Parts: sequence; structure tokens; C-alpha cells
Amino acid sequence: MIFASDNWSGAHPTINEALALHSEGMASAYGTSDLDKAVEKRFDEIFEREVAVFFVGTGTAANSLALASVNRPGGVVLCHREAHVVEDECGAPEFFTHGARMAPVDGPNGLIDPANLRREIARFKPGHVHAGQPMAVSISQPGEAGTLYTADEIEVIADIAHGRDLTLHMDGARFANGLVATGLSPAEMTWKRGVDILSFGATKNGCWCAEAIVVFDPEKASQFPYIRKRGAQLFSKTRFVAAQFMAYFEAGLWLDMAGHSNRMADRLRAALSASNAAREAWPTHSNEVFALLPKDLAARMQAAGAVFYEWNAPHSMPDLVTEGETLVRLVTSWSTQEEDVERFAGFLR
Amino acid sequence: MIFASDNWSGAHPTINEALALHSEGMASAYGTSDLDKAVEKRFDEIFEREVAVFFVGTGTAANSLALASVNRPGGVVLCHREAHVVEDECGAPEFFTHGARMAPVDGPNGLIDPANLRREIARFKPGHVHAGQPMAVSISQPGEAGTLYTADEIEVIADIAHGRDLTLHMDGARFANGLVATGLSPAEMTWKRGVDILSFGATKNGCWCAEAIVVFDPEKASQFPYIRKRGAQLFSKTRFVAAQFMAYFEAGLWLDMAGHSNRMADRLRAALSASNAAREAWPTHSNEVFALLPKDLAARMQAAGAVFYEWNAPHSMPDLVTEGETLVRLVTSWSTQEEDVERFAGFLR
Amino acid sequence: MIFASDNWSGAHPTINEALALHSEGMASAYGTSDLDKAVEKRFDEIFEREVAVFFVGTGTAANSLALASVNRPGGVVLCHREAHVVEDECGAPEFFTHGARMAPVDGPNGLIDPANLRREIARFKPGHVHAGQPMAVSISQPGEAGTLYTADEIEVIADIAHGRDLTLHMDGARFANGLVATGLSPAEMTWKRGVDILSFGATKNGCWCAEAIVVFDPEKASQFPYIRKRGAQLFSKTRFVAAQFMAYFEAGLWLDMAGHSNRMADRLRAALSASNAAREAWPTHSNEVFALLPKDLAARMQAAGAVFYEWNAPHSMPDLVTEGETLVRLVTSWSTQEEDVERFAGFLR
Amino acid sequence: MIFASDNWSGAHPTINEALALHSEGMASAYGTSDLDKAVEKRFDEIFEREVAVFFVGTGTAANSLALASVNRPGGVVLCHREAHVVEDECGAPEFFTHGARMAPVDGPNGLIDPANLRREIARFKPGHVHAGQPMAVSISQPGEAGTLYTADEIEVIADIAHGRDLTLHMDGARFANGLVATGLSPAEMTWKRGVDILSFGATKNGCWCAEAIVVFDPEKASQFPYIRKRGAQLFSKTRFVAAQFMAYFEAGLWLDMAGHSNRMADRLRAALSASNAAREAWPTHSNEVFALLPKDLAARMQAAGAVFYEWNAPHSMPDLVTEGETLVRLVTSWSTQEEDVERFAGFLR
Repeated sequence: MIFASDNWSGAHPTINEALALHSEGMASAYGTSDLDKAVEKRFDEIFEREVAVFFVGTGTAANSLALASVNRPGGVVLCHREAHVVEDECGAPEFFTHGARMAPVDGPNGLIDPANLRREIARFKPGHVHAGQPMAVSISQPGEAGTLYTADEIEVIADIAHGRDLTLHMDGARFANGLVATGLSPAEMTWKRGVDILSFGATKNGCWCAEAIVVFDPEKASQFPYIRKRGAQLFSKTRFVAAQFMAYFEAGLWLDMAGHSNRMADRLRAALSASNAAREAWPTHSNEVFALLPKDLAARMQAAGAVFYEWNAPHSMPDLVTEGETLVRLVTSWSTQEEDVERFAGFLR
Repeated sequence: MIFASDNWSGAHPTINEALALHSEGMASAYGTSDLDKAVEKRFDEIFEREVAVFFVGTGTAANSLALASVNRPGGVVLCHREAHVVEDECGAPEFFTHGARMAPVDGPNGLIDPANLRREIARFKPGHVHAGQPMAVSISQPGEAGTLYTADEIEVIADIAHGRDLTLHMDGARFANGLVATGLSPAEMTWKRGVDILSFGATKNGCWCAEAIVVFDPEKASQFPYIRKRGAQLFSKTRFVAAQFMAYFEAGLWLDMAGHSNRMADRLRAALSASNAAREAWPTHSNEVFALLPKDLAARMQAAGAVFYEWNAPHSMPDLVTEGETLVRLVTSWSTQEEDVERFAGFLR
Repeated sequence: MIFASDNWSGAHPTINEALALHSEGMASAYGTSDLDKAVEKRFDEIFEREVAVFFVGTGTAANSLALASVNRPGGVVLCHREAHVVEDECGAPEFFTHGARMAPVDGPNGLIDPANLRREIARFKPGHVHAGQPMAVSISQPGEAGTLYTADEIEVIADIAHGRDLTLHMDGARFANGLVATGLSPAEMTWKRGVDILSFGATKNGCWCAEAIVVFDPEKASQFPYIRKRGAQLFSKTRFVAAQFMAYFEAGLWLDMAGHSNRMADRLRAALSASNAAREAWPTHSNEVFALLPKDLAARMQAAGAVFYEWNAPHSMPDLVTEGETLVRLVTSWSTQEEDVERFAGFLR
Repeated sequence: MIFASDNWSGAHPTINEALALHSEGMASAYGTSDLDKAVEKRFDEIFEREVAVFFVGTGTAANSLALASVNRPGGVVLCHREAHVVEDECGAPEFFTHGARMAPVDGPNGLIDPANLRREIARFKPGHVHAGQPMAVSISQPGEAGTLYTADEIEVIADIAHGRDLTLHMDGARFANGLVATGLSPAEMTWKRGVDILSFGATKNGCWCAEAIVVFDPEKASQFPYIRKRGAQLFSKTRFVAAQFMAYFEAGLWLDMAGHSNRMADRLRAALSASNAAREAWPTHSNEVFALLPKDLAARMQAAGAVFYEWNAPHSMPDLVTEGETLVRLVTSWSTQEEDVERFAGFLR
């Protein structure tokens, strides 16, 4: 009954087979091997256009370097108040951008409210040097609350951002889960609706360590090789990342794994929904379920082997957690066992 | 005949087997799993003392975060003029330390000359704020020139550093090659002779991606978890690094691989030594051989499939490369084939 | 009728006389002259204890270097959502701290609400590396909204901060205005109530360029000389700052100027209070008045020569500005003319 | 007999008069006042073209922000091994550029040797990400050794720099001394010979605190306002810098002061030249004289009230200082008294 995080899962056997397959012989290093190039082509196909792709080692690196690449002096990133880049990366985005400010935008269920976004951007008068200059809007799909924007909602945010010449960045640490849940194509969930730069994560969904930054206009990526190397994220044996991606995309493995993960989450959601003992904190869109459990029930579950994290309530829901309750996050993964979900559901009944 | 770099090699099968073995089931993330802890214990055993170990993804990260962790405002790192931290990390050490200066110290064969080091440190008068403050001496074992310090030479440098309260950092990207070549124990090549913090590399020597920072006085590492996370180097599925290290240390695999690599380099050296056509640029100590080849011979070799890099001459040897010659670097690895070495040697005859 | 900012005023004649007096002859540079030391002693007297004082050139430098001096990797500064360090320093605090995050705390009238502060700090679980580590609470006295904390309110915030081992920083860009308005002594408004480090501003109040960082525990300032020099804030001819401070403190000049400034603001406040046409946006505590003016009245005033800035409404008062109104800031200074205030008041009648 | 530094001098009375003159009344802040604009025009006239000018507070700020404005990720600045940006700014250039490396270029008498510069630049292969990317060449006129380039020598260096698309930066902390000594016009000593960006210093030469960055192609300065504000160098009451510059340029005051300073240095040089007891370390070009004094003579002079700094020997002159000697720097200024020079000369006889 481990629902702590999808990064508690390991790697899919197919991923390990690919590593074994590609481990022999010599291959040129630092992203220049044939396998690296083949994977870059796969990204072009998946996104239905030529893109610039840069492998990195962590989701934090993907977000931080993506934002660093579009920053300007005194730059400001507008993002949800509880975004991962704000709450869970130990200041890496600020560090790699040399101090860009993550300006909080409120909105329900972990999603930026467009009206609030417009209002926050309007606080910056063009040329008013003291306030700094907005440079990007960053959204997550799905985000820290596990929720998703529709394609139209993404487009609305993109239009607001582009109206002030801001880059739209998407944190796609769980990109495949977002795809499966929305039914959108990779292109439709990103550049066709205005996303300019994407953190593409595969680690949580069955890889060991495979993250990439996708720049949809390759001409804007000319300095990225230096940003990545200076950021200590240029791996020497990049074929080990490439091999993971190659297997990940093969025969729809990535979507199969994400599909399983989302289905497991949906069962947890359904169990909560049917429960008199506990309740869903907000809607479940992908593979993260947020639940309000009575503290004694949570304790009993933990005693029985359940693992999950207690979570801070969103700023926009100060009264969410009532006396005697605790807010917990339940995350499923490609390797979540149905039996575990069933056992957990049993506790809720 | 690929002698471009040891990072053109892949991963040893044993490493892949370990990955496959540890890929199943759930394990706590971010360095807290049982496997992570078991590997940390292995480091204690290998170094014959309790150490603090932090996994990271690249050698550049290891060096940069190690230096960041000991920096002070206006800090200066004294290192060889052609050190890897100066010439090959795209400014990452300066970036991660917020601008520490890499102050060059000259010395023959890529090794810091102690007299020069003393002189450079003496340029900094205590309390003279304008010059900045020296904070560390960084040596490589082996270094960019493939050469090695003896244990006594390390101790001399350590004494100079400690005499001014400077940390001694060792870049051990090819640590195993250094161990095998010197015959020293890990403890004797480091803390017993005054090294305070070590970049421990395994990637070049048969792993995919396994680097670690070893802090010999664990009490000095209290801020390191934050430095690593902020530096985007805290992997989520750390068991994948741990699994590599576990296999690497098992049954002496690491030293076997380094031994093979060094032997292959020694054969190249011997072939150069016996050659009338080419010559060794400076002494070969580990798995890197620097050779002066006639340009036409180099071209013929490349046409026949040899791969190697042309190299900048050291500042201390401005007249090294004569008209018609080119300076090249030849690197061997755990997977270098004897036939390739023999074929290369054939060209030299 | 210029109420744009107190930094639109010039320097008091006494300040210029002091500059002329001290401009002759040679004096040792970089803060080591007799005059520098005499001024440092004056700070000790004013604060009734030995303090460490560092001159810098701008208020932004004072705040940024103060925070830089107490930062830790992944550090977080808790401050009011509309604090000057957030909204008006172009990211300098983030830049000088290498990316510390300014975490917003809400509260009415530009003042941090202690309950909110407690809640925000509680979101950081000790040792949870992902969230970063809180390092300081920063308050302004008076702040961007011109409002002031009582001594007791400062102490409550200090206790919350110190309870988690956080430094309490005070932005005192208008410190003298705060002193005069509260009637507190410098000691009572700072360290006696728990302030650890102070940005002490004199520029806005009759100097040309005289700002200082005051560290109440001098032992914690050992690295500050390097932080300041690296931050390009160590002036060579520091006697020019020292001379300003010397004259500033002489015969109560600083408090006289601040007193005049506060009185002029109070008259503006009274005129607003008596007006049917306009209204005070929130209480006036020092030399800044925030007013809601009908847009046409504002335009008429501007046409008649009034200068003031339109201001963004606080996040906590989304409905403050009604249709047809504009929120403006009116700032008085040591050189504000009574006639200008009277003329402005006339418009309000 | 104070020859410690020209920044031990105070401000010229004319400078103080200008401050007093401009201290009354209100003026718009942050560089937007009429006086600010008038001074900007003066810069245009002095340099015979439209330039972008940005006032800052220290020479370190001028150099650091100038380099920051032209930096790229992984950037490298080529400069003399003993340049002020390397040896005397506590790492500020590295800090403000987020870690640009100051790559040392050797050359006699504190001047970059063009052949060495070519060789150093050639070490960077285009696109070789590991080495970083060269971004600028920085020269000083005069430099730390007090020596000067001829206009032709500047042009040679500019051509080398521009041949690799590098910006040529000139540190002109003692720009007026350079002008007077070379007899060149401001335009001829800078942009007409290829200088792209200039640190223009007036503080050492009779001002209190007046430094500026001059960008010769104003179109390249679009981000500079943000770089300066984020760097805490945007003064509020900028008229105080503008007033100093206005007086400085009036009626040739700046050149008169520099002329006096250079003449005083020339007398020291002549006295050294005529002395049997001491000797010039290298040629004197402006207002800094470097002398080798017998240690006992130096001690006698100091006992008699002489103040000067002992200096580190250049790396290129390891045998300069013989047993029993000390290398000292003697700096003259606009306020150096002839009597002091004569008294010093007396000691040398």
C-alpha cells in the first residue's frame, strides 16, 4: 500500500533491457551518438514538428534550465502559488535563473485563474525597472494538485502570456499522465495551444532517470547547450538517457504505463467517493488523489503498512482541513498493484 | 581504434545486471532507501572511516557542488592552470559557487608545483578584502594531463593548504585509475594525506552515471543536502545510482576495470616510446597518453578509423608542438580492445 | 505640489556643508578613516550598544546584502506580499542571495499578520529539503504602505522568527520617520524587541546617498566585508558617506527632518479625512499617504502641477478601488513646502 | 607624503559647490532629472557620438555590470593576469556575471601581449561547449601597473577581439590620466579604435563618487537599466552623481586635475631615475609609479610619514624583487602636494 510517490517505483523491465542492449561498444559522448540523434527524431515525430531537445537528469533541472534559458535581468515568472517550482525545488529555479522571482498567482485546485493572471501581469508597468520584468508564465500539466487544464484553458493562458511577450513554460513532470487523462495529442497539449517550452518527464513513469527540455522553436535554443553544461546537466554517456527514451516511446509503453497509473488513481478516487469515513479534497484528474482522512483512520492505515505523505492545505482553501482530519496525498504509478488499491479501499469502507 | 575518451565506453554488464535486479518494487526516494544506505556503508569501509556521501549525476556537478560547499564570499580556488575545473566545465564551478575565482597555479605535467602554490597563496594578505579570500586548493588525481601525485606530494600540498585554513579538494573523476597506478589505498590517497573533500567518479570507468561527493569530516556537510537539491542534483530514484555503485565495488570490479584501462594505456605509451615517428608529450601515469604525432600520420590514422582529440598545449610548454606535429590525447577505458591498441601501435611503427 | 517620492528631494544644506568640510586633505580609503570610525561610534551611541555598521550606496543594496549575509542554500525570506524587497527592487534580493525566495505573507495595511506568519513558517517541515529552508523574516518600518508596527508587534514577530531560528531583518529605508511617528528609541524599535539586522536609510531623509547595514551582534558580521566588496558596494572615499551621517545625526537634524515630513503627511491625511471628494485608502502612520481620488480630480490636480504615482492595490484589498477612482501615493519629505500641502488640500475641498 | 592611492584624496571644491548648487528643490529621481539628461548630453559631446551612459557608485560596479551586460552562459573574459578585475575586486566580476571566468593573458608591464591574446582565444574551439565561450576582452587604460596602450595597440587588440565576435571592454578608472598622458581624445582612445564599452571613472580624480558605464552602441544597452537596478546600483538621487560630472567636465577641470596628478608622478619617476638608492620597477606612464626600494629606506620613509603600499610582483617578473628590496606603489592625485613629492625625492637622493 505504498502511495508515497510515483518516484518510489522502479524502472520497467523494458527500460532495463534497452540499457543492457545499448551498453556495449563505443559511442560518442555528450549527446552526439547515433542513438541520441534517433531519439531526438522520435521527439520530432511525437510532437509533429521539429523541436530542440535537451536531456537532463532531474525534473528540477528541466524546470530550472528551461526558465534560465528565457530569463532576462530582473525577470519574474508567474506561476501558481503552490506550483512545484515554488514549493518543491529548494529554490533551484531562482538559483539557476540568477534570482528570477516566482510570483504567485492564485487559483482553485492548483490551476492558475486567468483573471488573476491578467491582474498580476498588469501590476508590471512596461519600463518600470523597479518591479523587474515579467518573463514567463509557468503552468504544470498535471500540477502539484494533480489537476489538469483543458486545451482551451491552456490556450487562454498562452494568449495572456504572449500578449505581454512572455514565454509559456509547461512543467510536464507527469506529461504522459496528462496526455492519457485529457486524451490530447502531445502537440495539442503543448505548442498547438501556445506552449513555448516544455519540461518532459519520464522518470516518474517507469524510467530510471530520463528528463528532457523541449524547445518548440529550435531557433530560441542557441544558448541552451552552454546553459546545460554550465548547469552540470550534460551527461557524458547520454546514450543511457537516450536508451531509456527509446524504449519508453516504443509501442506505446509510456502511455500504457500512464494509463495504468491513472486507472489505479481513479479507483482510489471512487473508493473515497463511496466512503463515509473520508472524502476527496478536490477533483482527481490524473494519478494523484488528495484525500481528507480522519486522523485515527490514517494512523490505522499506516500501522497496516500504508505509506503516503501528509500535505499542506492550499492557501486558497484555508478551511479545508477540519479538526480531526488530515490532508494526505496518494500517488499511483505504473507499478502500483491492484491488490494494494483494493486493500486501501477496504479501509475506506 | 577509439581513444577519444573513456566516456565513449558503455556500462559493464555487471552494472546493468544490478540495475535490473533493483528495478522492481517500491523503494523510498531521494537517497533514503535501504540500498542507498548500504552503499553509503560501503563508502565508509572503502575509506576506512565514517564519511558523508552524496550522489550526483556528473563529474562537473561533483566538482562544482564540492567547491560550492566550502566557498566563502569572494572565494578563490587555487588549481592547476589547465585543471578540468578551469578548462572543461563551462564555468560550472564559478556558477555554482556564485563566482569563486579559479586562480591558476603553474606546474609541469599538469601537476601543481608546491613552490608556485605557496607563492600564489602568499599574494593574498589576510583581511585584504579587495583580493578576495582563498578558500580551497583543488587537485586532480589523475588530472587533465593524466598524471598523478605521489602520496607525499599530496601531503605537501595539503600542508600548504591547511596552513592557510584552505580546504583541499580532489577531483577524482578517474579515481580508480589513480588507485591502481599508485598502488595506494583509497584512504591513503585521500584523507590520510590531507584531502578534505573528494569528487569520486565511476561513470568513466564502467558505470552509466555514478558520481559522488565524499566529505571526510561529515560534520562539515550539514548544508550539503540543500546545496545538492538547489543544484538540481538530487535524483528521485537514487537506487539507480546506488545499484551501480554496489556492483562497481563488488569483488573488486572497479579496480579490475581501471587496471585493464591503465594497462592498455601503458601499451600505447610503450609503442610511442619505441616509435621513431611519434613521441610521448609528457610521462604517462594512468589511462591517458599524450602524444605528438606528425600531422600526416595523424590524418592517416584517422582515415583508418582512429578517433582521438587534438589537444591544446600546456601554457608551461609553449614550444612543445613543433611545425608539422599535432598534440593528441589518447584515452583508454575498461572496454578498450587489445586489438585496437595493437592496430594503433602498428601505425606508430 | 510634488508628492512623487521623498527621494525627489535634494540634500539638506548641513549635509553639503559637511561634505565641503571633509573634502580636503588625504584620508585612508575604504572605510578606515578617522571620520568613518567616528561615525561608527555614533551608531553605537544611537543604538545604545556596540553594533557593526557597513555603509552602502542604496537601500536596495542594504536590504540585499543584509539578506545575503544571513542566507543559507535554498533559503527563504518571509515578508509581506507587497514588501519593497518583493515589489520594488527588481529582484536584487534574489540576485544577491543567489536565489533566496521571497515568500509572501499576507496581512492588512502592509503589515505582516502574525497568525499568517506562523502558518507560513509551519509549511516548512524541518529537514524537508525540497521546500528549502526558511532563513529570515523581513519587515519594514515603515513599509511600502507607510504603516508601522508597534514595539509589541515587532516583538511578537521576532519571537515567531526566533522560535524557528530565523533572523529578523528590518528594512528601515525611512527609519527616522518611523522613530518620530512611534516615539520609540532606535534601540527600542530594533534589537530590544528582537530585530537582528537593520537597513538604515538616510538618503530619503535629507542626505544624498547614505545607507548603512547595522548588525546588532557584531560577531555575526565576519563575512560582511567580503559580501559588500563582492557586491560592488565598498566605496573608496567612504568619508563622503561618513560626513553625511555625521551631519545627519548632529543636533537631532535627522529627527527634525523626519518630523517635518511626518507633519506634512498628517496635514494631507487631515485634508483627505475632511474631504467629500476623496478618501484615505488605509491609515496613515508616517510620511506616506495613500488616497483614493476620483480620476477626474486626479487629472485636474496633475494638470495644475501635482506629481504623484498611481499605485497597485494590495492583494488583500481586491475591491478597494471602485469604478472611476484611482489609488495614488503621496509622499512628503524634509523639504516639502507647506504651501504645496495647502494647495493640494484646496483641491480636496 | 601620502602616495597610498588617489582615492585617499578628497573632492575638489568645485565638485562640492556643484553639489550645494543642485541640492535644492525637487527633481525626479532614478536618473530622469533634467540635470541627469544634461550630463548624458555632455557625454555625447565628449565622445563625439551618441552613447548610452549609466551612472554607478564604484569602479567595481562599473566593470562588473559592464561585463555582466555582455556575458553569455559559460562566458569567459580575457584580461591581463594582474588586471584589476582579477586581483582587486573580490570576485565581483565573477559574481555579477553569474560566474564568467576571468582568463589570464600574460604580457609585460601590465599590458596584454597581442600574440598571447590570439593564442588564448585560439584555445576556444567554436561550439566546444566544455571550454565555455569567450565573450569579451577587457583592458585597462591605464591599468594596475599604471601603464598605457597606444591608440594603435588598442586597435590591434580590438581587431583580435572582434575577429571572434568578442566585446572589447576598457576599464577607465583613471581614464582622464590616460587621456592626458597619451594626448588622445576620448573618442580616439575608445570607440574610434574599437572599444565597445567603457568603465568611466571620476572618483579617483577629484569626485566623491562618480562612475559611469558608457556603451558606445546604445542599441546594445536595452537590458542595462534592469541589470543596474538588480545590481543595486541605481541611485535614487542621481542628480548628486550628475552634479559631480557636470562640474568635472566644466572648463576642463577633469583634465587639469589629471594633468597635475601625472606631473607629480613624473617627478617621482625622475627622482627614482636619478637615484642610486632605488629604481623604477617598470616604465611610468600615468599617475602610478612602481619602485623598488631597499627595505631599510622604505622603513625610514614610512617612519617619516610616507604612506604607500607594498605590491605583489607580476607573474611575468618572478625575479624582479631582489633580496633586501621591496616593491612599492606610489600613486599621485589631483591633490598631491609638490612639497610632499620633493620631500620624498629627498629621501631617494
